[in-house]
Amino acid sequence: MPAVRDVHPSALLDRIRIVLCRTSHPGNIGAAARAMKTMGLGRLVLVNPRVFPHPEADAMSSNARDVLAAARVVDSLAEALAGTVLAVATVSHAYELSHELVACRTAARRAVETAGAADVAFVFGTEAHGLSAEEVRLCNLLAHVPSNPDYSSLNLAQAVQIFAYEARLAAIGDTLPDTDRPPLASHDEIEALHAHLVEALTAIGFLDPAHPKRLMPRLRRLVARARLEREEVQLLRGVLKQVLVTARRAG
Amino acid sequence: MPAVRDVHPSALLDRIRIVLCRTSHPGNIGAAARAMKTMGLGRLVLVNPRVFPHPEADAMSSNARDVLAAARVVDSLAEALAGTVLAVATVSHAYELSHELVACRTAARRAVETAGAADVAFVFGTEAHGLSAEEVRLCNLLAHVPSNPDYSSLNLAQAVQIFAYEARLAAIGDTLPDTDRPPLASHDEIEALHAHLVEALTAIGFLDPAHPKRLMPRLRRLVARARLEREEVQLLRGVLKQVLVTARRAG
Repeated sequence: MPAVRDVHPSALLDRIRIVLCRTSHPGNIGAAARAMKTMGLGRLVLVNPRVFPHPEADAMSSNARDVLAAARVVDSLAEALAGTVLAVATVSHAYELSHELVACRTAARRAVETAGAADVAFVFGTEAHGLSAEEVRLCNLLAHVPSNPDYSSLNLAQAVQIFAYEARLAAIGDTLPDTDRPPLASHDEIEALHAHLVEALTAIGFLDPAHPKRLMPRLRRLVARARLEREEVQLLRGVLKQVLVTARRAG
Repeated sequence: MPAVRDVHPSALLDRIRIVLCRTSHPGNIGAAARAMKTMGLGRLVLVNPRVFPHPEADAMSSNARDVLAAARVVDSLAEALAGTVLAVATVSHAYELSHELVACRTAARRAVETAGAADVAFVFGTEAHGLSAEEVRLCNLLAHVPSNPDYSSLNLAQAVQIFAYEARLAAIGDTLPDTDRPPLASHDEIEALHAHLVEALTAIGFLDPAHPKRLMPRLRRLVARARLEREEVQLLRGVLKQVLVTARRAG
């Protein structure tokens, strides 16, 4: 996906609201806050929670109490969505006569693209029944987690976790830098390793230079796949040197 | 998402084990089982859980009790990994001199590609401390969830949820299984190779078992990255056998 280049990821994530509608269990609100914070989201809006604040919410939030403390509690979804330009209704099934339905990854990308310029929301319904048709109507887009059709029972905090995760990945860009690796061996160093290998395998009688068969091509294929580091080549050549010393002693 | 492939997604997901090491709280085992089932994963392996089975595990599994009922309980991570060709260690930080570290999405794609031909595992550590260095050493690849660096406190079931979700999307999505590759070496075959390596390196005086330094961990890291085929392991063991013969002749 094209990353939203000019905006810092955390600024994008700051434009995303997580809206929980009519949540029954305060523990789920706490767990959702924790899930949000692990992905760098901090804006929680609660529409008519059955009970909040509550010690269970605090307990389940682990160290994400700052997200709970900053949560806004409102009377209607319309109020929760005020100021947003995109509201994504998270659903487990398609609604009749409803909006476009996309996978959560697609929804997260659209939300993050939109968040370059304005506020967006992911909207979650009740634990037992999800969003009402009326609530869905207030949103612009439907999104679902492509779960097991035979068992799609994600709990609320798990659904929040997946949407928040996808939002974070969309914000920081799809091409994630894997860790920095130590310097890789150069072409010349790899060739010197192969020459050393031929010498050592010949010395111990494993390779017959007159009838090499497919031995060296097979080892080359393996070495190429391993993408050796410079220090690993030095280590392997240390082993080969000692093999040669041993072979000389064996006469 | 295009889903063109020769292997049915559910067959790929059936080749994926979720391995939980030394889990402290049975409730987390239940929540992990639920997270697995929502994504179509069913193979749970528990390495020395503190307590299992337990009513809390049942309660937290919701309707995923079948996953708990089918769970295997084993004494060691080595046993849990028997028969796998790829084991992904899930971590929240890099380990010193350890394997390649990738994002969970990359790891899930590689796992699903590999699952076209053989079993793979995602390995999770304890709630408080994650995997031990010893456990990580038995794996081939490290993977992390790119979470908020200021608050990366995903709980165990949330981490399982994200990896299972990525595995499912990889299985139903756009990666193709690499069924064209010759059979990869199993965990057991790789361990036998390492034992053979220790024997040969000791015989030529390169490894001092009393002062092994970092030699074997460095070689393990290299071998893990190379993802050796079964025939390559046989080839390398042929070389080691000949090294041992030579060392014996050298006295």
